[in-house]
Formats: sequence, structure tokens, C-alpha cells
Amino acid sequence: MTTHPPVTVRFFGGLGEIGANMAAVEVDGAILLIDVGLTFPDAEHYGVDLILPDWSHLRDRAGDITAIVITHGHEDHVGALPFFLREFGEVTVFASRLTAGLIEAKLAEHPHVSADLRTVEAGERLQEGPFDLEFVGMTHSIPDGFGVALHTPHGTILHSGDFKLDQTPIDGRPTDLPHLAEIGDGGVDLLLADSTNADVPGHVPTERTVGRTLSQVLDEATGRVVITTFASHIHRVQQALDAARDNERVCCFIGRSMVRNMPIARDLGYLAYDDQDVVDLAEIEALPPERVALICTGSQGEPFAALSLMAAGRHKQIRIAPGDTVVLASSVIPGNESAIFRTINGLTRQGARVVHKGVADIHVSGHAAADELQFFHNIVRPRAFVPVHGEYRHMAAHADVAVACGLDRQRVLVCEDGDSVELENGEVRAGPSFAAGRVFVDGLGVGDVGDAVLRDREVLSSEGVCVTVLTLDGHAQLVGTPEVVQQGVVDREDGSALLEKAASTLADALRAGEERGSEEAVVRRTSVETLRQFWREETGRRPVILPVLIDL
Amino acid sequence: MTTHPPVTVRFFGGLGEIGANMAAVEVDGAILLIDVGLTFPDAEHYGVDLILPDWSHLRDRAGDITAIVITHGHEDHVGALPFFLREFGEVTVFASRLTAGLIEAKLAEHPHVSADLRTVEAGERLQEGPFDLEFVGMTHSIPDGFGVALHTPHGTILHSGDFKLDQTPIDGRPTDLPHLAEIGDGGVDLLLADSTNADVPGHVPTERTVGRTLSQVLDEATGRVVITTFASHIHRVQQALDAARDNERVCCFIGRSMVRNMPIARDLGYLAYDDQDVVDLAEIEALPPERVALICTGSQGEPFAALSLMAAGRHKQIRIAPGDTVVLASSVIPGNESAIFRTINGLTRQGARVVHKGVADIHVSGHAAADELQFFHNIVRPRAFVPVHGEYRHMAAHADVAVACGLDRQRVLVCEDGDSVELENGEVRAGPSFAAGRVFVDGLGVGDVGDAVLRDREVLSSEGVCVTVLTLDGHAQLVGTPEVVQQGVVDREDGSALLEKAASTLADALRAGEERGSEEAVVRRTSVETLRQFWREETGRRPVILPVLIDL
Repeated sequence: MTTHPPVTVRFFGGLGEIGANMAAVEVDGAILLIDVGLTFPDAEHYGVDLILPDWSHLRDRAGDITAIVITHGHEDHVGALPFFLREFGEVTVFASRLTAGLIEAKLAEHPHVSADLRTVEAGERLQEGPFDLEFVGMTHSIPDGFGVALHTPHGTILHSGDFKLDQTPIDGRPTDLPHLAEIGDGGVDLLLADSTNADVPGHVPTERTVGRTLSQVLDEATGRVVITTFASHIHRVQQALDAARDNERVCCFIGRSMVRNMPIARDLGYLAYDDQDVVDLAEIEALPPERVALICTGSQGEPFAALSLMAAGRHKQIRIAPGDTVVLASSVIPGNESAIFRTINGLTRQGARVVHKGVADIHVSGHAAADELQFFHNIVRPRAFVPVHGEYRHMAAHADVAVACGLDRQRVLVCEDGDSVELENGEVRAGPSFAAGRVFVDGLGVGDVGDAVLRDREVLSSEGVCVTVLTLDGHAQLVGTPEVVQQGVVDREDGSALLEKAASTLADALRAGEERGSEEAVVRRTSVETLRQFWREETGRRPVILPVLIDL
Repeated sequence: MTTHPPVTVRFFGGLGEIGANMAAVEVDGAILLIDVGLTFPDAEHYGVDLILPDWSHLRDRAGDITAIVITHGHEDHVGALPFFLREFGEVTVFASRLTAGLIEAKLAEHPHVSADLRTVEAGERLQEGPFDLEFVGMTHSIPDGFGVALHTPHGTILHSGDFKLDQTPIDGRPTDLPHLAEIGDGGVDLLLADSTNADVPGHVPTERTVGRTLSQVLDEATGRVVITTFASHIHRVQQALDAARDNERVCCFIGRSMVRNMPIARDLGYLAYDDQDVVDLAEIEALPPERVALICTGSQGEPFAALSLMAAGRHKQIRIAPGDTVVLASSVIPGNESAIFRTINGLTRQGARVVHKGVADIHVSGHAAADELQFFHNIVRPRAFVPVHGEYRHMAAHADVAVACGLDRQRVLVCEDGDSVELENGEVRAGPSFAAGRVFVDGLGVGDVGDAVLRDREVLSSEGVCVTVLTLDGHAQLVGTPEVVQQGVVDREDGSALLEKAASTLADALRAGEERGSEEAVVRRTSVETLRQFWREETGRRPVILPVLIDL
């Protein structure tokens, strides 16, 4: 029997609704965070810029936060770090060399926050406060990622980070299965592991298949080639650079994050190219098309990304021309389909051949699929399992994988954001839930836009707004004619006759009511009801009605 | 040499931007329409209900419209018919028996429109005005579709409609290749053909593969099974009914369109089931789960569809329980990914096993893929080709297919909505373009919401609206304090202090300006600029600013 309180793992994001990964492990009153990610809004998040996990549960525990481990450099694992540091002050952050380099570049853009950034190597073991941490090299779609084992007084917890099991990765550093086996030999009491592709049968092909397709496309291309991918996918950029060099093409990086990240990756030794093989845009314009490869961002059809501007014929320097080949060496992030297809259509219309995932083997996932996860479970042999990093459907599928590998269904806890689990003497149980959720960043505001504001924006977005200004005398009687203005309900130019009619309809309704005596609340209600009915009858629409009452 | 004017084909929709199919063929001054479809809005069409093709080009040609051919019963081919008939009055409509049945049901919901509906059989040839029409049976994801050949004084035009080349379709009626070969023997001077899957390599598997998967899923299911698909996909419903019967399950149709369409299909002989095999919900509730199959709509995650309500635990009669199996026997229509995944997550969370396209062979496309299109081209042997029914990328890929089959690139015209082609003495050339585009249906309005209103709604949707009411004396001098209200910018309850600050900032700015003399235009501009800056500095947001000036 130990006298230590149970170890608690709390899930703030990444399990279900919020794709911003963040977990907190508490040992003897000290807290270690694993990842502090953010996620990007979709069409349902009207005007929101970023989404953070709600870490308010930690607000009165600031003094207990011992360190943060960032498993790898993707935004959904590290993106919220500046916001977190702004709120909690300087914290020790453990990261791999590349991840630390990317964090440094990120923090340089946030002058008022700082971190005590400590670089660790995969394979390293270290002690920080009560935390005995062991880092395991994992392969992913960004180099130098790791998982982390926490040896606690109640047992060992292994967090996989994001990973795949590519046995021939570009950097020759596959996920360290021997190390995982060794940790498994020591006993893993609780495994937390990446569920992203747990519902995808089979295996993910090696990243090298993308390189082979790239070489083939470059061989076939008679004109200029544009290759887009994620600016964090350094191995894919390496393959693009290599294929271009073999095809006697000179490269140019296009797009802010591509231009920013690649020199960092090269300086740190994660990307290799000769100076003469990557030049700037002015130099590349002097070369014949068949000697050129542009490596650029914008694979998700982002409106102001270089590729989208090229597709729309609005890029300042680069005009797509017949004979060009554009390669989208990327996945389609759900929600971006329409934007990506619009980009492909625009490029095709200008005469480019477009090679994308739908028609060629030009992308592989960074996450292990179901059959590979079986290898992982059988190597780690956990005594209990919580699937992480996925929507509910992925975590449920990962639970099935664990059971198929022999784990008792009772020892698999499918959790969601706001859930916790406790580990005591090697036994895992569900812990209390806590308030978790999404925090929206909109402009300068963090957390001041909530569901109520989004509901307002949703109605505004589909129906528009109608404002009426009513001048009242001291007895809440209408003076003159109401002013009625609208935006987004009908066309501004065509709508003026309708607004006059609305004003007179409203005046009639208010004057009819006055006979029964008036008060402001009644005037307000009558206005809303009258205008609501007016718009419904005239247009079938239900704009937001905003009455403003002016007292003389 | 003929004395007939050239035959013109005009493309109103379905080629590029607008997925609502409609083409017009003009022969000797008479016009035949092929399909009058609509399409559904996505997130970019703030609040719009439906999208129609813009047929205003035909407005002064109403007397020349001889007939409409509807190739099959999908909404993107027939959905706009009631709107068209409302504008143009009764028109002759040729359709197959099933298509006509669905049109009748649709027109019954629009009491003020009517059509002279004439049922035709695949294989039939008829004359209507100057149009010599020959209907060819085509297989698709709805039964009884056809293509149409138009024999004109200048040559033969063949329009494929939507089709696939499943050689073992459920109804035993594959696309009539011998008939197409015969028409080809006579010479096809212009082919218009479905491009939907022209960029998908290979062949589409037979619909029967879906039946095999359904049988397997039903065999494995220990509890209730819910099967969702499109209510127009009668063959798939037939396979679901057959698999359920073989698995000794009783079925129930759920969802408005499923309940409406299936009896029509059965009455017309396109769907077969015994009375005791399909019962209503009350009866089914009395049966043990393993004897039940629900066949329902909602495969696209539509918010109020039966399946979405089940996923959210809000369906009035049906509660999903552990042991249930839910089958999404459907595609993912781009733009619906998030809603569909939310549905799958909700069902999984309630304990259901969810079988969908991502994890099982439970859907096949209704459109021929690239390698099948080669068969089609080599059988028809057209002398000229215009790819139709697709986005630009699909039509460009279909052009490549035609060229690969031996057609001269000069004889392939890639057109878009608003383009036309002319056929004269067997030769095809590009004709003049005309004004085409999208017409939005929003509430009661058809066409009154345009791009300007959508831009207004877009800004409202992401930034909200701020209204200020300024009371001015006769010299455009501010009286009292401005009223400032907002919606969708900040939280309504938290925002009141901010609004007071906005009002006083605005009053200060206006009074500072008054020293230089005022006029209303200046007051208006100052208000907009001051409030714009205020919100930017305070929140980083850019709401719509609506100033309302009240003259005393």
C-alpha cells in the first residue's frame, strides 16, 4: 500500500468534440500537461478565428503546474501554448529539438509570453518534480514526434502522442517498437493512444509511395510543376525536393509558413537541400517552365493561400498556364471539400493538369490504421486503455481493437473531453467529470464569444437583420413614423418600397394599440411581432428584429 | 445544303458552378428542354433554401417552348420543374413511367402549376413539333432513367442523361448498349454525356455488392438494424427489403420521402414486397429487436431527418440502444461530412455499431467511372463531344477520355453554364454565350436574393451588427446621447458596459466634429468610422455598422 493519492488523468480536449489536444496528469498534487493544442473553426463557428480547450478547471491550480510536454509540432498539439502561457505565466516545456524550434518561432510572434523550453531526445528519461518521464520516438507526418511514459507511484502511464507505423520512414527513424516493448515489459498500467484511423481497416502505405508518385508525375510533366503540401510535413517536402532535383528542376518555396518553416527544419538538420536547388521567385521566373518546381502551401483551398490565388488567376507573380501540373500532395480535411474542389476547378480551367488524392497515390495518413494498432497493442500489452485523439466513432473503434488484442472490455474506458480517470495501485477507474469545452478566440477576445453570440450570428447569417427606430413621447406614444432599416433580408436597392410599407404597417399597428394605453415593453413587443409577421408574409424570412426606442 | 437554321444547344446548368441540370435544344425556332433541375445550398449560401438555374434567357421565348424531357427522377434533374411551370404555364413533359409518377406526386404539392405529362418508354421514338426524339434506357441510381437522341435536320444529338454501366443491375435492365450502338451506327454528330466520375479511374462495382454487404451485416446483427439510404434509390431499398426478409426481419419505412416514394414505386411495379414484410411503426415496436429492420432517410445528416434525431437521442419513437446496428448505405455528398460524422458519433455514443462507406462496401456510385466511359464512347463513336454534368475538373477529365478513345481534341468542346454550341450540316462549333447563373429561392422569394444580400449576410454571420441611433437637431447637431445596440458582436449580457463606452466615444467624436459645422452625410460617415475603430480596438472585430439618423 502506498500513501500517495491516486494519479489522475484529465482530458481537456482531443477526445470527441474538440480536436484541440490537451491532457493533464496529476501526481502528488503536481500537474503535468501533455499537449496544449488548438483547432480551427468550421462553418458552424460563425466568424470565430480559433478554438482552444477550456482549461478554466486549472485556473486556481496555476502554482501546481510543473511542466508541459509537447509531443510534436502540429497546431492541434501546440497551437494553444501562447494563450496558455499568457494566462499561466512561464512554464517549463519539454519538446524534441524540432518541436522546440517550431515553438521558438511561434513564441517569437507573441512577445509577452515566454516558456522555459527544454529540449529532450527520444529515448531520454528524466525527473521533473514528482514526474518520472521517458520519451519514446514515434513516427508521424511531422518529424521528431514522441510518446511519453510516466512512471508514477501507482503505475506506468503511456501516452502515444500521434503516430504511425511506417516501417520505412524518410528519416529512417520508425516508431521505436523495441523501446515500447521494453516499457511494456515493465508493465503499462494505463495506455492512452491515438485513435484517428482506428476505424480504417488495414495498413497505411509508407510515405515513400508518395515520393514514387511525385517522381512519376515530375517525369511526365512537360511544363512547370506546383507541389502543395502542409508546411509541417517536412518529409514530404524532402521528397518533393529530391524528386525535383532528380528531374533537374530548381525549387522555390511559396507561402508564409513554407518560407518560415523550411529554413528552421534545414538548420536543425531535418531537411537537406543544396543552396542552388532552392532559389527565390525572382530567379525562378527566369527559368524555362520545365526546369521549375514550386513548393507551396494552400492544399486546403484556404482563400488567401498562394494556390487558391493561382486557381482564381489572382496571384501577383504566378499565372497558371496550359502545360502546368499542380500536385495536391495532401489530405482533404473534412469541411474543406468545397474549397479544395473549387481550387482544382480553377486550376483545371486555366489548363493545368491537377494530380490529387482522388486520382493518384499522392497522400498517406500520419496515423496508424486498425491493423497496425493491433501491432501496437500487442507490443505494449497495456493493463488498461483509454483511446484518445479522435471523434467518438474513432475511439469506439479503437476500443474494439484493444479488445480484439485480448484486453478485457471492462479495462477499456471510452472517455470524452471533461472526463477523468484515476490510477491507484495499478488499477484504473473512471474519475469525476469536470467542466470542459471549447473557448473561442475571435479577434482580440478569448472566451467572450460563446454559444449565445454564435446563435445570434447564425440567425443573422441566414435571415439578416431589421432595425426599427421608434420615437416615443413621454407616454410611450409613437411620434412621427417609425424608421425601418434592414441588412441581409432583401436587396438594399430593391428593398426601399418594402421598408416604407413595413414602417407604415408598424405605425398602424402601434397606433391601434395606443387606444388601449401604452408602455414601452408593449411597444417593443408589438414592434417585434408586427415586423416579424410583415417579413414572413412578404418574404417568408425571419430576420432578427431589433427595436430601438427613443424617448423625447 | 439545308435551309434550316443551325441547331443550337444552350447550357443553363449542370456544367460547372450550378449543379442544377438544364439544357435547351433549339430546332427551327422551337425549343426542347432537357431536364429542369435544382440544387441545394451549402454553407456559402447564407439562408438560401434552393438554387435554380437562371432561365431568364428563355423569358421572351415562352411561346417557342415545345416540350421538356426529364431524363430521370433526381432533384437535380426535375426539382425546378414546378418553378418553371409556374413561370411559363403548362408545358408538355416527357418522362418515363416512374419519373412521371414522381413528377405527379411533386406537382400535387404545387396546386397552381400543371404539366401535360406524357409517359414514354425506353426504346420509343416519337415526333413532337420539329423534334424527332428517341429514348434510350440508361441504368442509374434511380430506376427507369433514359438518355435521348434528337434527330435534327443538321444531324443527330445524343444526350446520355445520368448513367452507369452496371452489367448486373437489380432490375435486369442494363444501359441499352445495343441501342446506343445502333444510334451510333446511324451517326452521332454531337454527344452530350455525364461526366460525374470521369476523373475516377476504373469501374464502379455492381449495385449487387451492396446487397451482399447488407446481407452480411444483417447476419451479424444481434439487435435491431436501421438502414438509411436515399429515398429515390429504389433498387437499394429493394436490396434492403430482400436482405431483411432473408434474415427474417420485418421492415418499416421511416422518413417523409421514404414513406411517400416507396408505395409509388411499388404501385408502378419498380419495388416488390409482401404486405406482411413492411408494417408501420406501432406494429414494429411490438417485435423483438432481432426481428426488426427500419429503412429510413437521413443519410446526409440532415438536421431534422429521422436518423439525425435518433443520433441525438431526440427521436420521438425510436431510441438507439447498445446492440443496434445502423447502416449508412449512401455516399457522402461534399459539404455534408461534418453533419454525417456527427450523426455517426451520436449513434456510436449510444452503443450502436455503425456501418458506413468508410468501413465497408456499402455504397456504389450511380455514375460510370473513367474506364467505363471509354466503353460508352467506343460504342457511340460520336463525331463531336461536349462533356456535361460535372464540375470543370470532371468535364476536363471526360474530355481526356473522349480523346483517349480517338476523338480529335478540336471536336471536344468543354463548355460551362451560359455557353452554347451550334450544329450545322453535321459540324459542331461554339455558339454565342448568354447570361446564365444561379437563382436563389429564399422563403417566398425567387430571385430577389442575390450576391449583394449574400455578402451582407456573410459579414453579419462572422462579425455581427452594431446599430447606432443619432437624434439630430435641424443643423445636424447631435441631441442627447447616441443609442448603440448590437447583435452577434459580443455577448448580449456582458456587452452593456461596452455599448455605453461606444455611445460616449461616438458622442465625443461627433461633438468634436460639430465645431467644424455638420451635415448629415458627415455625421453618418463619422459614426461609421468611429464605431468601426471602436470595435476594432476593443474586440478586433468588424461588425456591420448601421447608423440611423432621426431629425427632430
